[in-house]
Amino acid sequence: MTIRAIEWASGKIRLLDQSRLPWEEVFLELEDYREVAAAIKEMRIRGAPAIGIAAAYAMALGAQAIEAKSREEFLVKLSTVSQALRATRPTAANLFWAIDRMNRMAEVGEDVTQIKSALLHEAQRMEKENEEAHTKLSQYGAELVRDGFAIMTHCNTGALATAGYGTALGVIRAAKEQGKKLHVLVTETRPLLQGARLTTWELAKYNIPFTLIADTMTGHFLSRGKIDCVILGADRIAANGDFANKIGTYNIAVLAMENGVPFYVAAPSSTIDLSLSSGDEIPIEERRAEEVTHIEGIAIAPLGVEAANPAFDITPHYYVSAIITEKGVIREPYEMRLRRLFM
Amino acid sequence: MTIRAIEWASGKIRLLDQSRLPWEEVFLELEDYREVAAAIKEMRIRGAPAIGIAAAYAMALGAQAIEAKSREEFLVKLSTVSQALRATRPTAANLFWAIDRMNRMAEVGEDVTQIKSALLHEAQRMEKENEEAHTKLSQYGAELVRDGFAIMTHCNTGALATAGYGTALGVIRAAKEQGKKLHVLVTETRPLLQGARLTTWELAKYNIPFTLIADTMTGHFLSRGKIDCVILGADRIAANGDFANKIGTYNIAVLAMENGVPFYVAAPSSTIDLSLSSGDEIPIEERRAEEVTHIEGIAIAPLGVEAANPAFDITPHYYVSAIITEKGVIREPYEMRLRRLFM
Repeated sequence: MTIRAIEWASGKIRLLDQSRLPWEEVFLELEDYREVAAAIKEMRIRGAPAIGIAAAYAMALGAQAIEAKSREEFLVKLSTVSQALRATRPTAANLFWAIDRMNRMAEVGEDVTQIKSALLHEAQRMEKENEEAHTKLSQYGAELVRDGFAIMTHCNTGALATAGYGTALGVIRAAKEQGKKLHVLVTETRPLLQGARLTTWELAKYNIPFTLIADTMTGHFLSRGKIDCVILGADRIAANGDFANKIGTYNIAVLAMENGVPFYVAAPSSTIDLSLSSGDEIPIEERRAEEVTHIEGIAIAPLGVEAANPAFDITPHYYVSAIITEKGVIREPYEMRLRRLFM
Repeated sequence: MTIRAIEWASGKIRLLDQSRLPWEEVFLELEDYREVAAAIKEMRIRGAPAIGIAAAYAMALGAQAIEAKSREEFLVKLSTVSQALRATRPTAANLFWAIDRMNRMAEVGEDVTQIKSALLHEAQRMEKENEEAHTKLSQYGAELVRDGFAIMTHCNTGALATAGYGTALGVIRAAKEQGKKLHVLVTETRPLLQGARLTTWELAKYNIPFTLIADTMTGHFLSRGKIDCVILGADRIAANGDFANKIGTYNIAVLAMENGVPFYVAAPSSTIDLSLSSGDEIPIEERRAEEVTHIEGIAIAPLGVEAANPAFDITPHYYVSAIITEKGVIREPYEMRLRRLFM
C-alpha cells in the first residue's frame, strides 16, 4: 500500500491534491516553482516533512528554468526561488531546513549546468533520506506500542504528510505490521479537518481500526482510562524540546499529562531547530478566518463574524514523554540530548 | 432585545427552531406533547434550563388533551406523557426536575379539570421563576467580571438555551449592561456548533464584541495570558460540585487551571441534583455518529467511518473556581455549600 503525496516525474512535480481528499484523488502536475509555492500555501500539500521535500523539488524545478550566463547570475536568480518558497509557511522547520540545504549545495557548485544537476540529485537524495528516516523512527517508536493499545493521534502524520512512511502514523503502521492489535482514536482536527479527511482515509487503507472524534472529546476519552498513549507529529522542535504542531496539540498534551497518559512526539531530526532556545521563539502562522467560519465552502457562523485562526500551538517540553526520531527515542533532559543528536 | 426560545401561545407551544439558526428564524407551533418531545430530542430546543421549561409546557399540553373520567385515570395517562418526555435526553437535570415538579402538582390536585388548570399555571410559574433566577444569577456573576475582561465561553448559554436571560451568557450580558467593556472568545463547540451558530448570533444582537475560535484553539489562547476568566453553563451538578456540561467543557477546565485562569460555572439551582454524590453517576448521552461525520448535511469524513459522539463530559469540582447560582456564588467546599442551598 503506497501513497505518494509528491513525486518527481521527468521534469515535473506530481502532487496529490490533499485539499480534495477524501472526495477525489486528483494529481497536480506542476512545472513552475511558483505553482509549488502556491500549492504549499494553499495546503494542497501539507505536513512538515512533505513540505520540506516539496520545497527541495521546487528549488530543483526553479533551478532548471533559470537562464544565466554565470554562476553568480544563477545564484542571484536562485535566491528569488528560495525567497518565494520561504514565504509560503512560517512554522515548519523542515521547509527552511530543505531550502538551506539546497542553497548550500548550490553554493559549492562549480558551474550552472553542474549546479542544476546537483540540485536535482540533492532533492532526490533528501527524498530518499526522508523515507529512510521515517521508516527508522517508526521502528523505534513501535517499540513503545504494545499489543492491544488504544492510541490517540491528532492531525495527519502519515504518508500524505511526510512524503514517506509517516511519522506518528508511521509508528502506528509499524506497530501494526509487527502484528500488534491496535485501535486509533482520530481527532477531526479543526479547522481544516486533516484528521477526519486524511488520517481516516489512510488508516482505512492500512486496515487499522479507528474511531473518529470531535476535538472537544479528547479530554473525555483521555479521562476514561481507555487510551494507552498519544502519538502525534511536530512542525518544529526547539533546542529545549518545546515544539510547534497543529493547533490543538497543546490541549491534548495538557489533558494527557493530567490523566497520566504517555504523550509521544514523532518527528525526523530535520524538524529540530537548535537555533531556537525555546518554543517562545517559534513563529506561529495565522491563516484566513474563512477556514474557521466555513467548512467545505459552507458557512457555519453568521456571515462576517470575526474569527481567529492560529494554525499551530506550542507545547512546552515538560508535557512530552519522549521524542521519537530516526536517531533514537529521546527523553528528558531534552536540551542536552537533542544537541547530542547533531554532534 | 428579547429573544424568546419558547412561548405558551393560547394552547400551543411556540418554539424558535434552533437547528436552523442563524440561517433562518423559523418558529414551530406545536399542539401535541409528542412533537415537543421530538423537538427536544432533535435539539430544535436545547440548553438545560430551556428544555426544563419546554418539558413543563409539554406536560401541560399533554394534560389538556387527556380525556379521563377519573382523577386516577388521568394520572395514569399523564404518566405516559412524562415517560415520553423523560426519554428525550438523559443528561440535563432540569428536564427531570421540571417533570417531577409537574407530577407533584398533578398528584395533589383534586379533580381532572382542576389539575389541568394547575399544571398550566405551574408551567407558567416555572417559566417566570426561571427568568427571575437567571436575572439574579447574572447579577451575582457580573460582580466577578471586571471592566476590560476577555472572557472565554463554550456552547450556548444565552436566551436561546435558557428560555430566559441566560446563565453564563446572562452573566456576560449583565456585566455589559453595567457598562463594562468586554470581549468574548466563543468556542465553535463541535459537533453541533452551538457556539459558532447561536452564541455569535446572540452576542451580535447584544452588541458585545467577540472572536470565534475552533475548539482546538482553547489551550493556545488560555496559555497566552490574555483570557481573564472562563464562564460556561452546566447541564447537571452533582452534590460534590462535579458537573456535566457540553462536551469540551472538561478540556477547557483543565486548560484553565493549568494556566491559572478562573473557571466559573453559571447555572440555576434547578440544575443541581443532590441525589447524585459525584459526577461519575451522571448519565452521558451518546448521540448519532452523523453529527460528527457531517456538518450542515455535508460529509467531512469518508462515508461509513466509525465515530463516537458523547454529547457531554464530566468536569470534577476541583477545577471549578465558583458556581454562580440565583442563590449566590458558591465556592469550595461544594458538598456542604450546595446542600445548604436547599435547606
